[in-house]
Amino acid sequence: MTQLQVSDIGELGLLQRLQPFCTQTWLGDDAAVLAPLAHAPVLTTDVLVEGVHFSDRTTAPEDVGWRAVAANLSDLAAMGATPVGITVGLSLPGSTPVEWVERVYQGMADCLHCFGGTILGGDIVRSQQVSVAITAIGQVPPQRVLRRDRAQPGDLILATGCHGASRAGLALLLQPEIGQSLAVAARQALVQAHQRPVPRLDVLPLLDALSDEELGQLAGMDSSDGLANAVLHLCQASGVGARLVRSHLPLPPEFFPWLPETTALDWCLYGGEDFELILCAPPEIALDLLAQLGDRAALIGTVEAAPTVLLVADPEATTGVELTWDSCFQHF
Amino acid sequence: MTQLQVSDIGELGLLQRLQPFCTQTWLGDDAAVLAPLAHAPVLTTDVLVEGVHFSDRTTAPEDVGWRAVAANLSDLAAMGATPVGITVGLSLPGSTPVEWVERVYQGMADCLHCFGGTILGGDIVRSQQVSVAITAIGQVPPQRVLRRDRAQPGDLILATGCHGASRAGLALLLQPEIGQSLAVAARQALVQAHQRPVPRLDVLPLLDALSDEELGQLAGMDSSDGLANAVLHLCQASGVGARLVRSHLPLPPEFFPWLPETTALDWCLYGGEDFELILCAPPEIALDLLAQLGDRAALIGTVEAAPTVLLVADPEATTGVELTWDSCFQHF
Repeated sequence: MTQLQVSDIGELGLLQRLQPFCTQTWLGDDAAVLAPLAHAPVLTTDVLVEGVHFSDRTTAPEDVGWRAVAANLSDLAAMGATPVGITVGLSLPGSTPVEWVERVYQGMADCLHCFGGTILGGDIVRSQQVSVAITAIGQVPPQRVLRRDRAQPGDLILATGCHGASRAGLALLLQPEIGQSLAVAARQALVQAHQRPVPRLDVLPLLDALSDEELGQLAGMDSSDGLANAVLHLCQASGVGARLVRSHLPLPPEFFPWLPETTALDWCLYGGEDFELILCAPPEIALDLLAQLGDRAALIGTVEAAPTVLLVADPEATTGVELTWDSCFQHF
Repeated sequence: MTQLQVSDIGELGLLQRLQPFCTQTWLGDDAAVLAPLAHAPVLTTDVLVEGVHFSDRTTAPEDVGWRAVAANLSDLAAMGATPVGITVGLSLPGSTPVEWVERVYQGMADCLHCFGGTILGGDIVRSQQVSVAITAIGQVPPQRVLRRDRAQPGDLILATGCHGASRAGLALLLQPEIGQSLAVAARQALVQAHQRPVPRLDVLPLLDALSDEELGQLAGMDSSDGLANAVLHLCQASGVGARLVRSHLPLPPEFFPWLPETTALDWCLYGGEDFELILCAPPEIALDLLAQLGDRAALIGTVEAAPTVLLVADPEATTGVELTWDSCFQHF
């Protein structure tokens, strides 16, 4: 029996099958009307392309949907915003199995179910290559907006979670043989980090305990393109530099003693897609946040006046390796 | 001299060149924070794929940008909503000329300049096929929301503008020789209808003169997928039928005596991309709107209880041709 393809049921047929995943807001209408928002709207868009951002080899359809939504919710979290909903622009060949599309939507709905928001609607068009363009809308109280350009010399740099786990999970999916020394649970944790990343919306309620003045001293972004990339962006936007301490970098526990140190460091700094938050804040605020986050965060370095990002061996080191954009992921 | 390509300057280089087209809302940050909205947010997404929805043969880069934005703003207009801004998800090969991308953004900015809203931000990724995924956000006072499911037997059907002009413009671009009998201005008007469609946001202020009770009796959508498609959608959503009067169909004046009647009728009903509004309203409201819109609108038929859409020769005819989904544009 051949699989039902999108071209067999057409756009209207496909929309009918996807309706159960969507809220009634869309109402089969030209656009989605939302309830009025209490706070400022926040918008973000991410496009995932098959063969570039995901592949059938490593990503089940549900995971494609989950990761696409998680990437957008992470951008909202990085602005201090909570999710309201998403629109989905899906491009695919007519030969795409209907079940594949339904499973992608299932993954999107699952992620929204965990972290908030609904599928508001979207568009489905024919193309040669599959791609998923998601726009998320969230809302943020004006005083909680997290910007990149507020890092100050003397700030501590706080990173939530671990970095490098998603990259390691991808490596294990592409070359299962490299993980033979890993316990099953360790391997699974890394694969899960790649397939089901968690946007750090849980950090936002902690920010609400800060005064407006304290909030105004925070800088932050997410680490979707890697830890080094995030620190470089924060420093560039703020006109400052940073010192990252090598022994303080938040490597996943599964990396010891599995990986050689150079690989561990490379994946931690440049792996990307960990969707953690990188925050810069004056010491008292950073330490307060760290105390509340516990082992879900780490202090990885300091913001400096000199506009370079140095990786140093220990906090007292006077020299180090300069981190530059060259090693970061480039989309082109 | 070879043209500068996207891969020559990378994502960051490209974003720098596109920054002048965008508002400061994005601030090079993870997401765009907007000013709080007075009314309910409205979201809509459209994806345009090269070779499917546009082609270098018929569409200059500026027109690709204009049309992509116009399609989204038309969806907002169809909900009664005014534009606030857009996000842009751009997928393209690294070999794409940088100038092509800048010109697309120029076209998007031009369209927003005419009709309201700004480019809030977006994402640019690598892919084999060029596609432009736009999400527009607008806002609407709750009482002005235009829904599809409120058409009632006895309503008149009002169509803004002409229908078929965009399809004729496309034909003229693909086969210039078929338009030899047309005056230059006539040909240009049709080509313009295809390349620079106008979303009918000008209709919205007229709605504000109606009472809440009158607004609640309106049904409407846009005709992006064709006039017949819009009427079929309105009837299906409302559980009603319609009679369209052939001699009342809003053919572009340039069609006489250029086109054979069958072609004229086919393009008018099924051509698509005219981005006009189709409204159903009780006679007194429809006539009031018509009086205000003048020659920018026409009454094309009536809503009927029997759930079929008939095309009849004159208002008194008892038989006609049934219009069905089969003739409408299918995305797959």
